[in-house]
Amino acid sequence: MASTQLLEPPYYVVIFTSLMHAHSKEYGETSSEIYGLAQGQPGFLGFDSVRDAGGQGVTISYWRTLDDVTNFRKIATHRQAQQRGRDAFYERYEVRVAKVEKEYAWRRKEDGRGEYLKP
Amino acid sequence: MASTQLLEPPYYVVIFTSLMHAHSKEYGETSSEIYGLAQGQPGFLGFDSVRDAGGQGVTISYWRTLDDVTNFRKIATHRQAQQRGRDAFYERYEVRVAKVEKEYAWRRKEDGRGEYLKP
Repeated sequence: MASTQLLEPPYYVVIFTSLMHAHSKEYGETSSEIYGLAQGQPGFLGFDSVRDAGGQGVTISYWRTLDDVTNFRKIATHRQAQQRGRDAFYERYEVRVAKVEKEYAWRRKEDGRGEYLKP
Repeated sequence: MASTQLLEPPYYVVIFTSLMHAHSKEYGETSSEIYGLAQGQPGFLGFDSVRDAGGQGVTISYWRTLDDVTNFRKIATHRQAQQRGRDAFYERYEVRVAKVEKEYAWRRKEDGRGEYLKP
């Protein structure tokens, strides 16, 4: 996970939930590729990606505005069209675009106690 | 993952990203407990939860309205306060509340081809 820093709402997220056939090296490649693609884009704020051994995964990318999301989705869709084999890894996936309204975090401090943080 | 069905935007999500000390049975218990807690609440639409072997996890719960989220957070916070030991599992976590504006899904059909779905 890359986006451990707190972000300042409002901003946008793209939530990608999926089921792969199996945990495979292709996942690592796909995930790094999306990250590489996103990282260079205007408004990119961060990225979280987790997949378990059963092939279930969630990838969240964080964006400053809805326009930034739209631009990224155009690029990602274009890239995907170039690589039709990509869908072969998936059984299913869902894509959701959402506006973050509130957030807070909890961190363990060096003394072992926890503290709550707000942006 | 439980929320493989498409939902009708607008609706709300609570995104919980976290790092645990290690993949442990406590995670399974915590996740089932949150699910059990959420499932009985008004406006609950679904739940996705993934954690990898490194302890990184994402849990997303889906809700009809912001009031439903607020009610759920009150109950979850109350439960958490009763069980202070819970934080002992975590190194850090973030909680984000977001309004879903768009969504679509991709499904593999029986013939092996894919199809896009909208709510």
